[in-house]
Amino acid sequence: MRIGELSTATGIPVPTIKYYLREGLLAPGELTSPNQASYGEAHIRRLRLIRALVDLAQVPVAQVKEIVASLDADDVSLHDQIGRAHRALTPSRKPTASPEARAAAAVEVEALIARRKWTVEPEAPALATLIETVAALRTLGQDNLVAFLDAYAEAVDTFAQLEVQAVSAPTRDQLAESVVVGTILGETLISSLRLLAQESISAERWR
Amino acid sequence: MRIGELSTATGIPVPTIKYYLREGLLAPGELTSPNQASYGEAHIRRLRLIRALVDLAQVPVAQVKEIVASLDADDVSLHDQIGRAHRALTPSRKPTASPEARAAAAVEVEALIARRKWTVEPEAPALATLIETVAALRTLGQDNLVAFLDAYAEAVDTFAQLEVQAVSAPTRDQLAESVVVGTILGETLISSLRLLAQESISAERWR
Repeated sequence: MRIGELSTATGIPVPTIKYYLREGLLAPGELTSPNQASYGEAHIRRLRLIRALVDLAQVPVAQVKEIVASLDADDVSLHDQIGRAHRALTPSRKPTASPEARAAAAVEVEALIARRKWTVEPEAPALATLIETVAALRTLGQDNLVAFLDAYAEAVDTFAQLEVQAVSAPTRDQLAESVVVGTILGETLISSLRLLAQESISAERWR
Repeated sequence: MRIGELSTATGIPVPTIKYYLREGLLAPGELTSPNQASYGEAHIRRLRLIRALVDLAQVPVAQVKEIVASLDADDVSLHDQIGRAHRALTPSRKPTASPEARAAAAVEVEALIARRKWTVEPEAPALATLIETVAALRTLGQDNLVAFLDAYAEAVDTFAQLEVQAVSAPTRDQLAESVVVGTILGETLISSLRLLAQESISAERWR
């Protein structure tokens, strides 16, 4: 199909598609003449993925580019795919805690990881975020919330087990896509559900 | 204390503190001479909160300003405080789904809310995000993940009940702060824990 038809099929304006082509997020179509390219089903599928990551999950374009590049690489393991999706979800943050608060939080988080028997790389970006968050909550006097760390961890462990079981697809390419979408949009899903649950409880209790 | 001491106590550089003062995120100190102001414990506490929201949770400064303004208003109910924290967590997003996919997802989400007996305003920003996410997952063929909606919803309901019970503080001001911090940093906590749990399961299974 031509670029105009690709636009109609996906609802994405032609200039936006051209931008994704220029940025290397979308593979070029097959040239049918010097000025015309033809696109297929794989382009529709990829455009839907790009749109969900950019507009819905609000992942920066540079990171979406890295993610789709990894989807097209044959030599990237599923474990590495997950690692790339994780980096897209954990922007580097300025450290906010004092060195003492961070050291104490690191000890707490290490103990939690040992209790859960999790295998986690020391340089996992989510590990730094978790330690900073625990340190910030302690500094702000929100010890009540830190007391739920184990309850939170147990619940997310259940999620993650379900999510990994849910990842299934007929081909290796689609499996990798499923891992990326599940990781990133799963977070949007959990976040919006949590806010709705809170709103409901708050409406009963505090309105 | 003077602004330099405030900086030492919080680890926040003086120019950053001056920026927060100019932007109205931090209340002015008490003038002790035309060129000098004095700051107290309340300023330290507020600066720590601002830093956690801006640098750790990455809430845009304009929304942090709205949140801290609501903390200082006596006539804002706790339910409204939660609403403001929720808006900070749910940026407005470009719609990505087709009208048909969105309509179908809205029916699914309505049914879920009815099953959970949640009381949710039709204009809750998290509701729109949830509907768009379900529509995107269906469009991308990730029906396996949508199948977990009820399991996710049940887990977040448990979180939210715990979180609302955990909110306790000696004064009304601190209660409001606790609600805001719990809502916003609780999300950072859950998100980083989920990524660590996924990494661990993925390492066992796919590395």
